[in-house]
Amino acid sequence: MRVAIQGERGCFSHEAALKLVPKCKVVPCALSRDVFERLSGGAVAAAVIPIENSLAGSVLEHFDLLLAHDVFVQREHRLRINHHLIAAPGVKLKEVRRAFSHPVALDQCRDFFRKHPQIRPEPFYDTAGSVKRVVEQGLADAAGIGPKQAAAEYGGHILQSDLEDDRQNFTRFFLVTRKHRVLPGANKSSIAFSLKNLPGALFKALSVFALRDLSLIKIESRPVRGRPWEYVFYVDIAGGEAAVRERSLRHLEEVAEWVKVLGVYPAAV
Amino acid sequence: MRVAIQGERGCFSHEAALKLVPKCKVVPCALSRDVFERLSGGAVAAAVIPIENSLAGSVLEHFDLLLAHDVFVQREHRLRINHHLIAAPGVKLKEVRRAFSHPVALDQCRDFFRKHPQIRPEPFYDTAGSVKRVVEQGLADAAGIGPKQAAAEYGGHILQSDLEDDRQNFTRFFLVTRKHRVLPGANKSSIAFSLKNLPGALFKALSVFALRDLSLIKIESRPVRGRPWEYVFYVDIAGGEAAVRERSLRHLEEVAEWVKVLGVYPAAV
Repeated sequence: MRVAIQGERGCFSHEAALKLVPKCKVVPCALSRDVFERLSGGAVAAAVIPIENSLAGSVLEHFDLLLAHDVFVQREHRLRINHHLIAAPGVKLKEVRRAFSHPVALDQCRDFFRKHPQIRPEPFYDTAGSVKRVVEQGLADAAGIGPKQAAAEYGGHILQSDLEDDRQNFTRFFLVTRKHRVLPGANKSSIAFSLKNLPGALFKALSVFALRDLSLIKIESRPVRGRPWEYVFYVDIAGGEAAVRERSLRHLEEVAEWVKVLGVYPAAV
Repeated sequence: MRVAIQGERGCFSHEAALKLVPKCKVVPCALSRDVFERLSGGAVAAAVIPIENSLAGSVLEHFDLLLAHDVFVQREHRLRINHHLIAAPGVKLKEVRRAFSHPVALDQCRDFFRKHPQIRPEPFYDTAGSVKRVVEQGLADAAGIGPKQAAAEYGGHILQSDLEDDRQNFTRFFLVTRKHRVLPGANKSSIAFSLKNLPGALFKALSVFALRDLSLIKIESRPVRGRPWEYVFYVDIAGGEAAVRERSLRHLEEVAEWVKVLGVYPAAV
């Protein structure tokens, strides 16, 4: 099964794809919109995208892309984010003077840089890509900070593991397909809607869930392009039987300008 | 008056600072946390920070920093974001092969790059910084994409103005001080709170505003560090008299784990 991901082979999305679809063949894409275009166009059977990190928050671009495409969330997976210092074979920790990685990853390894003041953090556009670079170029004074999978992928050598300051670092990934299929055990919904700009509109919208004892797990608001300071809302709802969820959505349609169900799927444990 | 900003002189925060505090002396800081430390420590009288862009959404790091520091939002300002192609004096548009800027700015100028395929976009860590670089190094084949203020600041030459695809591109800035002063005409509040993880908790929290006809303008949820999938909520509330706002906050304290008012200020027009 071919699964599109954003980023180089060996990135965290690659790791998540292997968890969600064991033995899948990943198709790396440079941009997230390429991932969705390949999925929509039928070039791949599925896509695996990060949707939220427990430290950094939501990847709002991915919510927007889910909204813009006729696709459906099938599953979610929580991946523990471990950062590793990875260099070309033969390079030793004491020789490393520069560590490349995505700025978010560098920022999550502040303790490591405090303990190793001789190593300078250098921003790079991808975690796995930074590993690819140092290994392919055989850099003798540099390392990349990235996932374990990147070391396997590019033949890098792990100099140190678990560089992240916070062990509570998880990323939630979605498995997205073209089919609107709801798997057995599905108990969580991701929904997008927009509201008329009236006082109390959001309160009314959320009441459709609260009045039916459905839990609102998460809410995000996102600007609408071309209409400054108007918002699309993204919510995650848990609990309830299928019939109750359906009734809450019919009710939401009464108060919202439009409603789109992005997916109904089993909650990750 | 000394005002701390994040970014180089000539950045959009610099432009916003001059609007919010005419003739202020800006103090550029490399990181947003430096801005807040200088303000808290008394090294500057105020800070000007971007809080939300009409296309890209909220700058959530700045909400977190407002929450973590004993500071207060005094004013807001909406700045129209105009991107300009700026080069060293003497460089002509037809000679430019590379355009440096922050990735968000580059992404907002896609039409420009489509119309000028000979110019390659190159990511850089700051809009104004990219202008500084091309002018200081006298690059003959490159330009930076940044604010008008950056051309004035570094002696750059504007080759083309208004490169942005979307003319509805605004950024909302906050003027932040240590004093908890509420200016006359203040009609908007920014509030942070956290909730017990109970069904309907957010619905109850928002009811304190809805039941008093206060408008919820904006809502964001943000992960709590070290407690995966728990959230702090940030809301903007408009309308109501001071006494009504006060009562809604007392009511919110009954249902929330904690509440912090980040600021009460006149809404930008």
